[in-house]
Amino acid sequence: MNAQFMFQLKNTDTTSSARCGQITTAHGKIETPVFMPVGTQASVKSLSPHELIDTGSEIILGNTYHLYLRPGMEILRRAGGLHKFANWPRPMLTDSGGYQVFSLAGLRKIHDGGVRFQSHIDGSYHEFTPEKVMEMQRLIGADIIMAFDECPPHDADEKYVARSNAITVKWAQRCKAAWTANQQEYGYGQVLFGIAQGGTFEALRRQSTEQLIELDLPGYAIGGLSVGEPAPAMYEMTAVSTEILPAEKPRYLMGVGKPENLVEAVNLGVDMFDCVMPTRNGRKGQAFTWQGTLNLKNAQFKDDFTPIDEACRCYTCCNFSRAYIRHLLHANELLVMRLVSLHNIQFYQNLMAAMRSAIAENRFTQWRKIFYLKYGWSMDTGS
Amino acid sequence: MNAQFMFQLKNTDTTSSARCGQITTAHGKIETPVFMPVGTQASVKSLSPHELIDTGSEIILGNTYHLYLRPGMEILRRAGGLHKFANWPRPMLTDSGGYQVFSLAGLRKIHDGGVRFQSHIDGSYHEFTPEKVMEMQRLIGADIIMAFDECPPHDADEKYVARSNAITVKWAQRCKAAWTANQQEYGYGQVLFGIAQGGTFEALRRQSTEQLIELDLPGYAIGGLSVGEPAPAMYEMTAVSTEILPAEKPRYLMGVGKPENLVEAVNLGVDMFDCVMPTRNGRKGQAFTWQGTLNLKNAQFKDDFTPIDEACRCYTCCNFSRAYIRHLLHANELLVMRLVSLHNIQFYQNLMAAMRSAIAENRFTQWRKIFYLKYGWSMDTGS
Repeated sequence: MNAQFMFQLKNTDTTSSARCGQITTAHGKIETPVFMPVGTQASVKSLSPHELIDTGSEIILGNTYHLYLRPGMEILRRAGGLHKFANWPRPMLTDSGGYQVFSLAGLRKIHDGGVRFQSHIDGSYHEFTPEKVMEMQRLIGADIIMAFDECPPHDADEKYVARSNAITVKWAQRCKAAWTANQQEYGYGQVLFGIAQGGTFEALRRQSTEQLIELDLPGYAIGGLSVGEPAPAMYEMTAVSTEILPAEKPRYLMGVGKPENLVEAVNLGVDMFDCVMPTRNGRKGQAFTWQGTLNLKNAQFKDDFTPIDEACRCYTCCNFSRAYIRHLLHANELLVMRLVSLHNIQFYQNLMAAMRSAIAENRFTQWRKIFYLKYGWSMDTGS
Repeated sequence: MNAQFMFQLKNTDTTSSARCGQITTAHGKIETPVFMPVGTQASVKSLSPHELIDTGSEIILGNTYHLYLRPGMEILRRAGGLHKFANWPRPMLTDSGGYQVFSLAGLRKIHDGGVRFQSHIDGSYHEFTPEKVMEMQRLIGADIIMAFDECPPHDADEKYVARSNAITVKWAQRCKAAWTANQQEYGYGQVLFGIAQGGTFEALRRQSTEQLIELDLPGYAIGGLSVGEPAPAMYEMTAVSTEILPAEKPRYLMGVGKPENLVEAVNLGVDMFDCVMPTRNGRKGQAFTWQGTLNLKNAQFKDDFTPIDEACRCYTCCNFSRAYIRHLLHANELLVMRLVSLHNIQFYQNLMAAMRSAIAENRFTQWRKIFYLKYGWSMDTGS
């Protein structure tokens, strides 16, 4: 339980900027590039921890904002932290809640010290400061904790983003100071990642990234992307960061994304991803496969007795047909949310594993070509 | 796959009318008294077939009315029947849809040949006759199929119930003729159970039961109870039937019930039960335990880090605390519907197993006393 946090860069692909490596945490190792399923409220929606483990998921996410409101810090402290509360034995990462708090447009007020906001659940008033967010993440107990940042809206102007950058870096400094000063809550180490912002303004993106690098943190996230900007802008801003981020530390592109977004960001040198897409879209009947996505509600599947993906070894594909899944979707049966979510998480984990192998063997560029040509995925050029 | 349907009465308790036995079907054996989880629309809500098997569930239910509307008979025929469609390898029973069709007050019209009704989904018009219901149940392919009956409302007067009895027996005769004449659809036998009605009028209940017995069917159900009448009336009517039903054939009390209802009906000689209660109530956070029911939403559980039931070996109790389950309930997390449903099905199966052991050892009366005294369950005297 007391392994030192470590990132070992195993290989940088000779044909691209893609990297593979291994993160060591108190709760185990993580092969990178990694996809982290999202368990906002202490549960990856509809799935059990053992099902997630079966998909090869090595780390999941929680969210400080949501966990602060429910079940609250006192319950988590008494449970011995989120790992024990949710019975998740592997590594965990918590987002700081910055993104969530700043999404509460109209319900929040930023001041220099932090942000005052109203709960989306009951309208009650609360205040987050960098110090408080660090303290909460100590109580939650995730292996990787995130700095409290301001995430500007994707249509914010340059002046707004510049001001926001200044707040984010000041708060990152305060987070680092608090994280360094705070005691371990549960007898194992937790590490702080900073979050770079800067919108889609190249100079501001570079500035924010450089300011974070100066703080010499254990890892860095690229934040404020995948919030409505076109995919090419997202890739451009990601490249601005990955080009200057230190090679020996993990890089996490927050909230991304579609399979093709992951491929492109891995190509640029990103190591970590999280996204609700496989579970959220899965609950609505969208399945991810190597041949693209399927809308399993469609009439064409009503008498299709093959699995979602013949080659997939997930519980869903080993046991159920597209016709049965389509029936469950139309009959509003809860089981189907599990079945498609599980398959989609498995697809994402298989995708990451395929990329890791290609990088280890210095054939990522060829693999990426095949991904688009053979498997029918297209570059994401839309927003 | 071609085992002959058989009911072997293993023991009749020397201290009560409780019986234990074994039903053999083409899809395997069933120890009785048995509780059958309800999978109305080809899915026991929120649970996977393998989870149900883990609870010791040996047979599940489907419903002809719902399956006829969705996915429809043509899909089930092409799937090779409901077992294959839903990937359920064990025995299955389908209700005839009589109860559902007659619940469509205002949307249905009974005539001598059958009943014309409107779908609760889209208002489209349909007609069920005894012959059509037999044909549909051949296509669904359950091991035990039910006669098409008229289920009168619990407040129907004596005259209505008498007229209804006449329809039910006539339709049972037509069902038997159709079942006998129809070919096997999938290469294995299916057996027809009759359904006795008669409301809560003792003479009519006896009449309906006797008329069915004359048809010499493989098994008999006690229908039209647990529809709003007080529990004592339900027990009284159950006893009217079990006293005259042939000992060598299984007896199925439809739609029952609470744990204490099962105990009382087993005491009267019933062999089979089905009820949505463990899953429906489970989804709302009500858990069944040997000490009674728990409403897991209650504040008292917010920092209770013990499992629902320390003695239970289900996945939920082996992995999660009441505090976590309470959090998931308040956060509207889907996982919780699975966790409590699974525990409740496990409790029902444990309850049945305990009763089977007590009957086999001629100590059912003592067991029943302990159930009420030691475990804090009370006789159900309400409605």
